[in-house]
Amino acid sequence: MLFFTQCFGAVLDLIHLRFQHYKAKRVFSAAGQLVCVVNPTHSLKYAPTRCAAAQASTEQGILPPCHHHEAVHDPQLLPCTCPLFSCPWEGHLEVVVSHLRQTHRINILQGAEIVFLATDMHLPAPTDWIIMHSCLGHQFLLVLRKQEKYEGHPQFFATMMLIGTPSQADNFTYRLELNRNQRRLKWEATPRSILECVDSVISDGDCLVLNTSLAQLFSDNGSLAIGIAITTSKVHSSEAEV
Amino acid sequence: MLFFTQCFGAVLDLIHLRFQHYKAKRVFSAAGQLVCVVNPTHSLKYAPTRCAAAQASTEQGILPPCHHHEAVHDPQLLPCTCPLFSCPWEGHLEVVVSHLRQTHRINILQGAEIVFLATDMHLPAPTDWIIMHSCLGHQFLLVLRKQEKYEGHPQFFATMMLIGTPSQADNFTYRLELNRNQRRLKWEATPRSILECVDSVISDGDCLVLNTSLAQLFSDNGSLAIGIAITTSKVHSSEAEV
Repeated sequence: MLFFTQCFGAVLDLIHLRFQHYKAKRVFSAAGQLVCVVNPTHSLKYAPTRCAAAQASTEQGILPPCHHHEAVHDPQLLPCTCPLFSCPWEGHLEVVVSHLRQTHRINILQGAEIVFLATDMHLPAPTDWIIMHSCLGHQFLLVLRKQEKYEGHPQFFATMMLIGTPSQADNFTYRLELNRNQRRLKWEATPRSILECVDSVISDGDCLVLNTSLAQLFSDNGSLAIGIAITTSKVHSSEAEV
Repeated sequence: MLFFTQCFGAVLDLIHLRFQHYKAKRVFSAAGQLVCVVNPTHSLKYAPTRCAAAQASTEQGILPPCHHHEAVHDPQLLPCTCPLFSCPWEGHLEVVVSHLRQTHRINILQGAEIVFLATDMHLPAPTDWIIMHSCLGHQFLLVLRKQEKYEGHPQFFATMMLIGTPSQADNFTYRLELNRNQRRLKWEATPRSILECVDSVISDGDCLVLNTSLAQLFSDNGSLAIGIAITTSKVHSSEAEV
């Protein structure tokens, strides 16, 4: 009986996901973009972030688990970069993608332009929506995080990291775009390298930041669609083109 | 002696403004846009906002000083819409522009695309930077406000209001753009009518919102350049074009 109940629940979940996917495809079909439904990942609320742990361990003279590339004991080895997971894994840059796919079950999508459809935006902070994006011969990690920087006031932070070195990251520009209810918000920047800490990028606020009311305006039925495009960057003389 | 000191101070101020203007012109000259240096207006920190006063007076059965168009006692008369000034003026929509220019000394600029250069971003909240913008046969009011929604955490809010009715406002789209340090942030929306309260637009967060660290990244020497463009709006089928 329990088995049938579980099967029924799984079928309902599949129908729900399928419905969200079709709805998103309908909305974005005009642009012919690939839509990816991304479910939330609950964060370990009381676990220290790797950045905090890094600071603590540095004070104790222990190798920090979240370190910038200049502080790595073996420059060939990286800690697990999956945000908010307390994962003890360390490995080479080349195998980070397979670790994230296999251990953390993060999907990977192909294409220069995709739509990231984050579901269940109402879930309490901290919550993450994570996906990998493969294009232009590289892999990128998109992180959308709901976090309370000021108690009682959750905000959404979205950023893109290159699974590569900082000098490789400098060759790209990523764009995140929200478009709904006669409002449009675009953020363009150079991706950070995954060797930097996603927690510090978000705590610095150097990313797309949305307060709850704006997130609601851009959401449809609890899901937030973010258009993502990655290009190779030109020389930034474009600062004059405001 | 005092007269000469004051004259010297005024000359220094002029040189400083001229320098800022030329610097901005140099930065934006490639786009051939008109640059307007906008100095801050200190807000009356402890004066209740018109929206709060409106609520209080509505509770007491008195005509609210800040009302939406459906609540106006005489639909031809408007209260002064200059944000944060406790101005008792009321008048017709047609004379709002001359009142704002003459009484509140708000500059008016011509052109479909201009650059709004807000100076002294470091000043404590609450502070406003206000300008009028004339294009496409209408006048618009641009308000940039530094405000502490969460104590100790000032944020910047930028919005554009049409000095006209809500149905007239629906015919336009405004764009605010920040571009510096290899980052670009764009906000596009339909302007609100000046018959609505700018305080409530900002408190709802339905505008361009910047935290202090992002504002610093986009600032140059304490000044924030915002590119402004106004267009007549097309039918918003563009929601599919994320």
